[in-house]
Amino acid sequence: MSKQDAQVDDAALCCSPVMRAPLSAEQSTELARVFKAIGEPVRLRLLSLIASHAGGEACVCDLTGAFELSGPTISHHLKVLREAGVIEGERRGTWIYYRVRPETLRAISSVLVPADAGTVTA
Amino acid sequence: MSKQDAQVDDAALCCSPVMRAPLSAEQSTELARVFKAIGEPVRLRLLSLIASHAGGEACVCDLTGAFELSGPTISHHLKVLREAGVIEGERRGTWIYYRVRPETLRAISSVLVPADAGTVTA
Repeated sequence: MSKQDAQVDDAALCCSPVMRAPLSAEQSTELARVFKAIGEPVRLRLLSLIASHAGGEACVCDLTGAFELSGPTISHHLKVLREAGVIEGERRGTWIYYRVRPETLRAISSVLVPADAGTVTA
Repeated sequence: MSKQDAQVDDAALCCSPVMRAPLSAEQSTELARVFKAIGEPVRLRLLSLIASHAGGEACVCDLTGAFELSGPTISHHLKVLREAGVIEGERRGTWIYYRVRPETLRAISSVLVPADAGTVTA
């Protein structure tokens, strides 16, 4: 598994207008896919656990303790997050280490900034 | 229908930590509900159409033209957005006028800001 395995279209995400202009059907489809991936409590919690973990990365071994769920179930949710481009995984030895893809988070966050607010500072 | 009809728990949303600390199971459930609501292409597009419409509000009559969907289908999606606290509706005469609830957008947007980024400016 490489760092390049995210199947999300970064180009479509990066240039989405914020709430100042209507999204096209194509932009909506791409963005909704990411929101749907994090629109599930376990996956959203996994995302926050990975993002806030020491060094900004975590393996399944670091994550299972927080849930009363099996390893394969956790792995399934990680796969959904990975395929949506929210996280990426890198195998090192026995484990795959996951980290957040900040560019995806920034892209979907900026879409949500209301028209009367400012922008996300880098 | 009043402006107070959103069924989302604003208190739970407003104080969610960003990606710097793990979300609790309760916070994840509340936030995931909002992300799930906008994790659907038609609903996300409706949200952007409402947010960017003249005056920041739109009725179903303003929205149906953008989709090859029936009025009742559009209304169903608007109901899901309303129940998640993303938009609110106010009846004036024949129509219900919908507008975005910026406090909800700001809350879920701030959750997504990566730990290495700044915060959303007001």
